[in-house]
Amino acid sequence: MGVVVSLDDKPQGGSIDQLVALVAADMERVNQTILARTGSEVTMIPEVANHLISSGGKRLRPMLTLATAGLCGFGGDGHIKLAAAVEFMHTATLLHDDVVDESDMRRGKLAARMVWGNEASVLVGDFLLGQAFKMMVEVGSLQCLDVLSSAAAVIAEGEVMQLSAAKDTQTTEDAYLEVIRAKTAALFAAASEVGPILAGRSKADIEACRGYGSNLGIAFQLIDDALDYGGSAAKLGKNVGDDFREGKITLPVVLSFRRGTEAERDFWRRTLERGEIGDNDLALALATMKKHRALEDTVERARHYGAMARDALELFPASPWKRALFEVVDFCVNRAH
Amino acid sequence: MGVVVSLDDKPQGGSIDQLVALVAADMERVNQTILARTGSEVTMIPEVANHLISSGGKRLRPMLTLATAGLCGFGGDGHIKLAAAVEFMHTATLLHDDVVDESDMRRGKLAARMVWGNEASVLVGDFLLGQAFKMMVEVGSLQCLDVLSSAAAVIAEGEVMQLSAAKDTQTTEDAYLEVIRAKTAALFAAASEVGPILAGRSKADIEACRGYGSNLGIAFQLIDDALDYGGSAAKLGKNVGDDFREGKITLPVVLSFRRGTEAERDFWRRTLERGEIGDNDLALALATMKKHRALEDTVERARHYGAMARDALELFPASPWKRALFEVVDFCVNRAH
Repeated sequence: MGVVVSLDDKPQGGSIDQLVALVAADMERVNQTILARTGSEVTMIPEVANHLISSGGKRLRPMLTLATAGLCGFGGDGHIKLAAAVEFMHTATLLHDDVVDESDMRRGKLAARMVWGNEASVLVGDFLLGQAFKMMVEVGSLQCLDVLSSAAAVIAEGEVMQLSAAKDTQTTEDAYLEVIRAKTAALFAAASEVGPILAGRSKADIEACRGYGSNLGIAFQLIDDALDYGGSAAKLGKNVGDDFREGKITLPVVLSFRRGTEAERDFWRRTLERGEIGDNDLALALATMKKHRALEDTVERARHYGAMARDALELFPASPWKRALFEVVDFCVNRAH
Repeated sequence: MGVVVSLDDKPQGGSIDQLVALVAADMERVNQTILARTGSEVTMIPEVANHLISSGGKRLRPMLTLATAGLCGFGGDGHIKLAAAVEFMHTATLLHDDVVDESDMRRGKLAARMVWGNEASVLVGDFLLGQAFKMMVEVGSLQCLDVLSSAAAVIAEGEVMQLSAAKDTQTTEDAYLEVIRAKTAALFAAASEVGPILAGRSKADIEACRGYGSNLGIAFQLIDDALDYGGSAAKLGKNVGDDFREGKITLPVVLSFRRGTEAERDFWRRTLERGEIGDNDLALALATMKKHRALEDTVERARHYGAMARDALELFPASPWKRALFEVVDFCVNRAH
């Protein structure tokens, strides 16, 4: 059976290099916009914002906006501000998440809340959200504003949903999926949808790009949840077992709980619901997941959504953009190996 | 000299009754919109939102949107959603403020964070912000979107500014004004500006309404800060001396510090900067403020901004709307007596 999620093996295909190369010039403008828009006379704002923004996230979401605009032949420049807005929405979510999760680390650095306090994380997150909306308004597309503001509401709803379901080992796979659709896939979907809207493409093309982003987002989150039990702190930028220690119910747990013996279910209830976690419990959790192939099957589920993401784009003719967007799917799914 | 800020005296004029009567029909629609838009299958969202929304705030800000629309003869119904959006922005700010301030009470009830936790306050605040933007987008005025999204960014910037200036007894009156312009007056201004925009009025009329809201907001916050040292918990919905215990630098403190002896300055540094507060220190703070007429003069400053608010509206012809908006100024300034 072996350990499914091992970072010692080489990647099995898929890379974001093509995408990075295609969007390089646009991304440079996005980065300049991000820097300009985190400027404030209130020095704490650029400090906190840059701490997180410069800490080496892949900027996958804004790249999706740039790439779907490219895929659809957009010739204007509204996609730059919208891509920056998407990254700000994401960064604001991370800042607020850290407060909610009481995280110590984020992307391999101390979480902003550990350096500047919870207050600054909440308020700088709000500032970035405000700036994001200002940029969207400047672009002036009501349809894009609709897509992105709806996503903002859905993301927050998903976070609250996750909070309500927290520590509930009875969570079903469907309920879990509903959470990650809202808290992760909604922004991937919106980021991918505004490109074809700006380009004035057909409803079918807009929905295709949205479907690509949405399914990619689900696959991405599933792999993230698997990596939490199998990655290394260096690669993840957070600690292995964080989700376990926080009592988060992710798919590896959902599968292990449902497939488990009554004694195993007692183990999950004790550790995740009641938070009674001893020194050997993370190792025991991993062994139980291995026994039930929970990580392998989480990756399998991710593959399914990855396939849907690819198929969503199939109606577009071949192009370097399409190829790069396909590669991203493989990259996201295979980073678990 | 006497205690300036006493709630035992009768109000000395000014009421919001006329305004409440004029906007009653519209306000009913705003309330229905608020209820509809806090609905979610995630039950924690309506619970938290309604806890705060139904807890008896005056809804002054949405009333400003309705009243300035009325003043400008607006005949459509976009002002309903914008008024609801303004109230959501305000409610989101309160939820996030409570987390930042670690407040126990809000409007005479337990703060939401005490009942549902910091997490829910952060996330439900984000949800309400998302819903606010959705409603603005539905109304479809890019100019109104610009005004309100700019206000959102400025408010957050003001909150961070306040955080940076926190516990700094050297804060100048101008620096303090800059904070309240951003964190309070910006939303009053935006709430008052979107009415004439919807009504298609001239730049002069739009700026007049904005000036009214902005100056009213400053006066309102100044009185709030005075009441914190002179009101009663029942009337304020929070505890007397909260600002003192939290080390907040408001105008009564700024004036007392600058007018004080070196020994008095040591007192403010010990209590507000270092947070070393003994049993008698609130009484001592009040006595020092009385000695320097700090509360009286804070109210005098509020009167000045109240006068500016009234003058901003003077170019409008006489109408019940104008009369009601003038009365609101007196109500805000005189509630300290």
